[in-house]
Amino acid sequence: MPSDVGDHTERELIARIQARLPPPPSWMLVGIGDDAAVVEPEKNRVEVLSVDAIVDGVHFDRAFVPPDAIGHRALAVNLSDLAAMGAAPRLALLSLILPDTLPLADFDGIIGGLTALAAEYRVHVAGGNLTRSPGPLVIDVTITGTVKRRQALTRAGARAGDEIYVSGTIGAAAAGLRLLRNRPSPEHVVPSTADCGLIEAYLRPTPRVRLGVWLGRNRAASACVDLSDGLADGVHRIAEASGVGITIDADALPIDAVAREILRRQDGDPLLDAISSGDDYELLFAMRPRMRRYVLGASRHAAVPLTRIGVCTDDRAVRLQGAGRDLPLPCGYTHFRRT
Amino acid sequence: MPSDVGDHTERELIARIQARLPPPPSWMLVGIGDDAAVVEPEKNRVEVLSVDAIVDGVHFDRAFVPPDAIGHRALAVNLSDLAAMGAAPRLALLSLILPDTLPLADFDGIIGGLTALAAEYRVHVAGGNLTRSPGPLVIDVTITGTVKRRQALTRAGARAGDEIYVSGTIGAAAAGLRLLRNRPSPEHVVPSTADCGLIEAYLRPTPRVRLGVWLGRNRAASACVDLSDGLADGVHRIAEASGVGITIDADALPIDAVAREILRRQDGDPLLDAISSGDDYELLFAMRPRMRRYVLGASRHAAVPLTRIGVCTDDRAVRLQGAGRDLPLPCGYTHFRRT
Repeated sequence: MPSDVGDHTERELIARIQARLPPPPSWMLVGIGDDAAVVEPEKNRVEVLSVDAIVDGVHFDRAFVPPDAIGHRALAVNLSDLAAMGAAPRLALLSLILPDTLPLADFDGIIGGLTALAAEYRVHVAGGNLTRSPGPLVIDVTITGTVKRRQALTRAGARAGDEIYVSGTIGAAAAGLRLLRNRPSPEHVVPSTADCGLIEAYLRPTPRVRLGVWLGRNRAASACVDLSDGLADGVHRIAEASGVGITIDADALPIDAVAREILRRQDGDPLLDAISSGDDYELLFAMRPRMRRYVLGASRHAAVPLTRIGVCTDDRAVRLQGAGRDLPLPCGYTHFRRT
Repeated sequence: MPSDVGDHTERELIARIQARLPPPPSWMLVGIGDDAAVVEPEKNRVEVLSVDAIVDGVHFDRAFVPPDAIGHRALAVNLSDLAAMGAAPRLALLSLILPDTLPLADFDGIIGGLTALAAEYRVHVAGGNLTRSPGPLVIDVTITGTVKRRQALTRAGARAGDEIYVSGTIGAAAAGLRLLRNRPSPEHVVPSTADCGLIEAYLRPTPRVRLGVWLGRNRAASACVDLSDGLADGVHRIAEASGVGITIDADALPIDAVAREILRRQDGDPLLDAISSGDDYELLFAMRPRMRRYVLGASRHAAVPLTRIGVCTDDRAVRLQGAGRDLPLPCGYTHFRRT
């Protein structure tokens, strides 16, 4: 008989997670099952830590996001933060806030999606916490990684003249989300191949870990941020932290072609939609012009296209030019004050 | 005019947190404001990590727990986990899941309670995440600390013949919670001095960090756990992880005297209530009999009484004897399957 997480003890649920984990590495001295995890630090590295929560109804919707994609996303958003620092991921702590009515099969699906991505990036689940809640499902993941001290990427190193790059394409996830939201019934509408690509971009984003680590190791980027709050927001963050202006070339933005059509059909301004959507987990980075020869190597190593989209200036203006526009770059997405 | 967090941007709220933080220590290379924090590991130490979430309506109730006590609790439960490992706390990451309607004054109060406790234990807030939610307030704290490798306390080192100790008293927090729940109106009922002590024990538990670190440093405890899920649960955890039996002497349990009266008045079995309540953040530990001479020193150093309440046995039975009883120790509190 199908059951809900509310029918099971915390220990039973933890056992279901443990069953999906590989054997712990030698540096994990105490893993799941004590009051805390104990790990040996990595020699000659500094440690990078981040936490990010996703909430049902805010960052995803259980009505159209399958459980494995929820688990995937919960870890991917954290991997993306580490990538933006140039750090290699190491371990994760999972804090799951579960409604009693969450079906056990969905719990297993979420854990399955998360542990599959963890295995792909060699992230070891070191512990966590389970709690029931009268509210929506929340998955909060803490991640740690390591990087050589002088190879850590921050938002603060860009200088006037540096060029701005973005990985992959933008807008695909936003378009995928629109498609999912507008499907009258998930069972009865078979999306086209092109639509499937967009939906997949939304459901299972690829964190750019290989790219971030490569940029850090080669000291190829002067500043880096991920697009978790959208491209426009990322540009502002680098400009502010580095004390530079940035001009973005609207004609150069790698907006996914299929996504552009879908966004246009629904809203009217696919460009503004694509740069303010928070679901593209790409990296945005600045690079000294003399490092341009690294672009091809980075792109090949990380198996993702890189596009030059702008330049840092010595005024403090953050502008969007081209495609018939010349305006201050909008500030993008914020979690609060949205409505 | 009073405002809610929903009236403010994420950045404004982060700025309110930053305003309450002391200058970062030299080992914090990148703090709040980038994609992740970057820290220098502590030399010759292993790292201890834990995460714990508290949820409105499950672990506290905004109807009768003031904001500063919510913030205090969110960090205290994590400090308690580190204490149980013998680790000195170092940094925390805050993940706040906020209903839009949370008054800004309450947000400030929560942050104030949390940062005050952080300052007391020299825990540095290295970063975090804010998100809105249609559900209840959730505060999820990740904490890291450090300990020398051979001084880390786990649940697994107890042997037959080891004696079981508990710090402080038990039952006070459970009684304090009853008092708070049953007050007809917080404004109009002034609690007695004795009642205030219980309410305070519930609202602002003292994590036993000094005790845990001392026990680890002197290798005085063979196993240790905190009472976050109740004394009975803690005893079972040590017994199971160490592969021993444990007999608890019911007559020896340091149940708070005032709490005993309140629990008796309301339920009938103050002893079972006190050992199964999850709100006492005391430490439970095992000690070789030859280490008994350390007890006074530990108690003085940590400024908390220590009481011998039981002994480890070479069968696997976990029993409660004395006070006219001889029965298997109940399994205590679990977060799921409670209703």
